[in-house]
Amino acid sequence: MIEINTKITELFKIRYPIIQAGMVWVSGWKLASAVSSAGGLGLIGSGSMAPELLRQHIQNCSKATNKPFGVNIPLSRKDAKDLVNVAVEEGIKIVFTSAGHPKTFINILKKNGISVAHVVPSVKYALKAEEAGCDAIVGEGVEAGGHNGIDEITTFTLIPQLVDTLKIPVIAAGGIADGRGIAAALLLGAEGVQMGTRFATTVESSAHENYKIKVIEAADNSTTLAFKKIGLVRMLKNDFARKSVEAEDEGWDEKRLTELLGNKREMKGIFEGDDLEGEMEAGQSSGLIKEILPVKDLFDKLLGEIEQAFKRKNYLISS
Amino acid sequence: MIEINTKITELFKIRYPIIQAGMVWVSGWKLASAVSSAGGLGLIGSGSMAPELLRQHIQNCSKATNKPFGVNIPLSRKDAKDLVNVAVEEGIKIVFTSAGHPKTFINILKKNGISVAHVVPSVKYALKAEEAGCDAIVGEGVEAGGHNGIDEITTFTLIPQLVDTLKIPVIAAGGIADGRGIAAALLLGAEGVQMGTRFATTVESSAHENYKIKVIEAADNSTTLAFKKIGLVRMLKNDFARKSVEAEDEGWDEKRLTELLGNKREMKGIFEGDDLEGEMEAGQSSGLIKEILPVKDLFDKLLGEIEQAFKRKNYLISS
Repeated sequence: MIEINTKITELFKIRYPIIQAGMVWVSGWKLASAVSSAGGLGLIGSGSMAPELLRQHIQNCSKATNKPFGVNIPLSRKDAKDLVNVAVEEGIKIVFTSAGHPKTFINILKKNGISVAHVVPSVKYALKAEEAGCDAIVGEGVEAGGHNGIDEITTFTLIPQLVDTLKIPVIAAGGIADGRGIAAALLLGAEGVQMGTRFATTVESSAHENYKIKVIEAADNSTTLAFKKIGLVRMLKNDFARKSVEAEDEGWDEKRLTELLGNKREMKGIFEGDDLEGEMEAGQSSGLIKEILPVKDLFDKLLGEIEQAFKRKNYLISS
Repeated sequence: MIEINTKITELFKIRYPIIQAGMVWVSGWKLASAVSSAGGLGLIGSGSMAPELLRQHIQNCSKATNKPFGVNIPLSRKDAKDLVNVAVEEGIKIVFTSAGHPKTFINILKKNGISVAHVVPSVKYALKAEEAGCDAIVGEGVEAGGHNGIDEITTFTLIPQLVDTLKIPVIAAGGIADGRGIAAALLLGAEGVQMGTRFATTVESSAHENYKIKVIEAADNSTTLAFKKIGLVRMLKNDFARKSVEAEDEGWDEKRLTELLGNKREMKGIFEGDDLEGEMEAGQSSGLIKEILPVKDLFDKLLGEIEQAFKRKNYLISS
């Protein structure tokens, strides 16, 4: 089996620079511990958890794996401080922050010996994260599922620009679902990758079965972007997604769009499996995902594919 | 210097699988012959040429290089048949078609021993091109400049899905502007790359100096998509682009949008250099482009960067 050593495997003390995104309704202790045990970095997604539920997930994850794992905290949450406190109290050493200013909790995190990575959609926000003192950034292209930056910058162009601008290591996210994608991201200059939809579709993911089936049935054009005016989201096309896109085409204002979105749409889609009216957040990589695998088998497959990708290189190119 | 041998170098009898996109107002005989002489494949962009002007460009290109070159023909042109006839009469052996059904002229092209590649934004259209009898397809991600498919599929997810689906070789386009991008595209399974904006910014490109300067000044978020309802276009942000995006946000209908677009906007932007009111078609890779180079120097640079990318791989990964 191949070995991959990058600044990210070093920073997080993990075997492979493959990170499972912290996702709402998907990534509790079961998924995170399975990914960490397989040699990647599992992240508990606290976005859909109350602080005390996060505490339980951290404790269960610690029991399930002796490998490093982390927590993703969306800074837009009103109680983000409580989530941060739980992570600190429970001895978490890796925190990924997203959806907010990276400076907010950096002092308390760093003071407690926590490595911090921040998720960004553009060079401007990456520089802010570096200045704030983050240890790494996740550069997320617009092909990613869920919330996206308004500039709609794709992975292929974002990653090399981040690498050219920053001193801290860059983790590539958005559109990566197999070993070819991981190999390509490393050549673009990334020190690691973060995959969301691929892990949301594993056996250990707590997404509803309907969600997983819709992802593996998806074609290249099965996702769409919507809600540009109130917070861009990529999701699988369904009745709700179509209504949202039509509303935008008709020029609906922020207020009407917010009403259309309503509350807990993503819980309805991802966790409850409502494939008509739920928001089924998923990336364009859905088209590449053809089976629901246990995490361990997925890792074996990914590593084999990375090897194949570089064998292809040796076949095509000689110096 | 490295050697790269793929199905695309074989098909077109070229040294490197690096293709210069046929672009309106940019790629006449000067650019196409320079690219072919450097070992890539130059394409004369007939989209902004009357048939007799195309004939002149082909004749001049033949005088300027003894290497293979081709012609790009947009099938949406009312006089596309006349352009095809000129290409055949002038002994062209490589034609790239775009913006229309690949079947339209495939018989006359193949009967004259011409290799045909068709540009597509999705798997569905790629299958149509393969069924029609094309020899290769160009898969173009939504990061590309100019006209884009309505599904907004990115290079990172489009290329591997095309490779998994098709029997004919895939050329990757969209977001590629340096050797890292070329190396990454090859690992995603492409047999070659097509670059537009990067070549539009060379010394030999006939784009206006203002256009070239705007591209090299561009950041990661300097382009935008507009005109979703009447034909999606990616261009540099300027007064015209902003007006277009605002009009869409307000829900303007097709008729009003068509009036706003008007005629020859891309000539005004690209060829005449009107950086306020012209349509300056350019890709997201603009943010990666920092200098205006002669084509020969650009090729030296790209090949060096490809080598560097694979050295990086050897540093990170061992079997």
